[in-house]
Amino acid sequence: MASEVETALVERYFRHLGSVRTDVVLGIGDDAAVLRAPPGMDLAMTTDSLVEGVHFHPGAAARSLGHRALAVNLSDLAAMGATPGWALLSLSLPAIDDAWLGEFSTGFGLLARSFNVALVGGNLSRGPLNITVQLCGMVQSGTALRRSGARPGHELWVSGTLGDAAAGLQLGSDASGAAASAASATERAWLRARFEYPTPRLALGQALRGIASSCMDLSDGLLADAARLAQASGCGAILQVERLPVSSALRAHEPASSWQRALQGGEDYELCFTAPADQAARLQELAAGLALPLTPCGTLQAAAGLVLRSGSSVIQFSQSPFEHFIS
Amino acid sequence: MASEVETALVERYFRHLGSVRTDVVLGIGDDAAVLRAPPGMDLAMTTDSLVEGVHFHPGAAARSLGHRALAVNLSDLAAMGATPGWALLSLSLPAIDDAWLGEFSTGFGLLARSFNVALVGGNLSRGPLNITVQLCGMVQSGTALRRSGARPGHELWVSGTLGDAAAGLQLGSDASGAAASAASATERAWLRARFEYPTPRLALGQALRGIASSCMDLSDGLLADAARLAQASGCGAILQVERLPVSSALRAHEPASSWQRALQGGEDYELCFTAPADQAARLQELAAGLALPLTPCGTLQAAAGLVLRSGSSVIQFSQSPFEHFIS
Repeated sequence: MASEVETALVERYFRHLGSVRTDVVLGIGDDAAVLRAPPGMDLAMTTDSLVEGVHFHPGAAARSLGHRALAVNLSDLAAMGATPGWALLSLSLPAIDDAWLGEFSTGFGLLARSFNVALVGGNLSRGPLNITVQLCGMVQSGTALRRSGARPGHELWVSGTLGDAAAGLQLGSDASGAAASAASATERAWLRARFEYPTPRLALGQALRGIASSCMDLSDGLLADAARLAQASGCGAILQVERLPVSSALRAHEPASSWQRALQGGEDYELCFTAPADQAARLQELAAGLALPLTPCGTLQAAAGLVLRSGSSVIQFSQSPFEHFIS
Repeated sequence: MASEVETALVERYFRHLGSVRTDVVLGIGDDAAVLRAPPGMDLAMTTDSLVEGVHFHPGAAARSLGHRALAVNLSDLAAMGATPGWALLSLSLPAIDDAWLGEFSTGFGLLARSFNVALVGGNLSRGPLNITVQLCGMVQSGTALRRSGARPGHELWVSGTLGDAAAGLQLGSDASGAAASAASATERAWLRARFEYPTPRLALGQALRGIASSCMDLSDGLLADAARLAQASGCGAILQVERLPVSSALRAHEPASSWQRALQGGEDYELCFTAPADQAARLQELAAGLALPLTPCGTLQAAAGLVLRSGSSVIQFSQSPFEHFIS
């Protein structure tokens, strides 16, 4: 993109997006941003991309894309127990579309301000639609949560409810799904919002430091992600299917298969974590304080691999895992 | 991209890329990287993308793309006087191509190791080819170079030679250009390498702290970038055309128009900086120490805008500036 055009677009849509932070020495407009890291804190850095046709359908609402592009990165920091600070945005656009840019920056900016994130740099190019956000946060040195700390006997917990976003994604692209659903219009709208405007669990992640033995965020579905967490910890896990937290909206929408959605639906952006059994009461207090359900739904074990149980029966389950490939 | 595929590719091509640094608490493989910022240092953060058809031709050598994707970000940190540390890579690929990934990671890794950069995270998606790198470096608090410190009377300097990369880019895509050129095959190969494997001027940038009053890197051509630097400093500038540093290879290749290339050719990734006139001897010593030409080729003035002079004559020059759009 010609630099004068890029400069004008940045000025119009991005310069004042997000929070004003006193640790930003130099923000958008120079060769790089200059940031003042707080003493005693480690930095947590992550990046994630949304690619058209892969992570979202062509024609997806720009406001939702702005929100999600930041939310998926905020969710990564939540999984580390970190506090977000500074974001960079790389945006490749097929054409300059002021309505799209206005909606996109609104979605990004509202979420950034609600979590005290400053947008400190980035770039705009012409090209197929690709949204890449990089996010840097802080966490007290030595306290970041990892995937690798779970031990056999620890309980496996998840936040919120699972599978809503995957159902909402399908509802957004398949009108016949709504007609066949027993869910109310309000419930269907809620499921769609769970996909389009996920809530990163930052307060939870920060509170889990010192309580959880491991943590990750759920982007590919509990089945795949819990296996990954267990593997990173050198363990296996048993998931108890009837304990999976499923929303009333998802039960109404898919009464027969809501537990499969909860296992396999991606894009949840809830946290999955483990803790010793003696932390259960503390976690339930935390849930009450955050007004966010926290549900123990499995146990780590020494034997590798993931076992699904319903009651005392082992379930065979061979469907392929969620893929970030819509088309 | 299915997560298991992504994990395997990261393991194969990216996990051990770049330098091993003791300030990386947790690298690739968790939800975010954890880094230990050194005390007394500010962080410098930047991101830049290479998009197929915009920043490079389809079929461009993957090794060169790996080098350039990192080099353009290193060049941004050079312009701040910062020392690079940690990189994140977001790569969107139309298909998994092992030969391409091997070459790309080689180009990226060789440059990363030569500047002590650790690759600490990133993501892979399926999609149109898009390479986005985020880079974080460190600079002693309060000493980062900016675009905005130039004052009327300061001299404007550039490093290296200008216009080589733009000529090299054209040579790479236009076989008839080589046939018409009076440059030797060695000179033409050197021009091409100036585009495909630019050298970020990190040692220079770091040495300029305390000497230069402003600095930026040259990506869009001196004409556009010097105007931008002057504007950021609330000044204008006079460029003296016959003083522009032009390589013997570019003179041989384009005897009549090498000065226009030097003014307008993008992708130089040299540094453009200003300094008070009494710093000239110190800068020439620095040039000798770094074995890198540093050339004063203009003067800042109070009146806004950019004036081109040849001898004492003002040149009218109305060609449109370089655009990062190849097609």
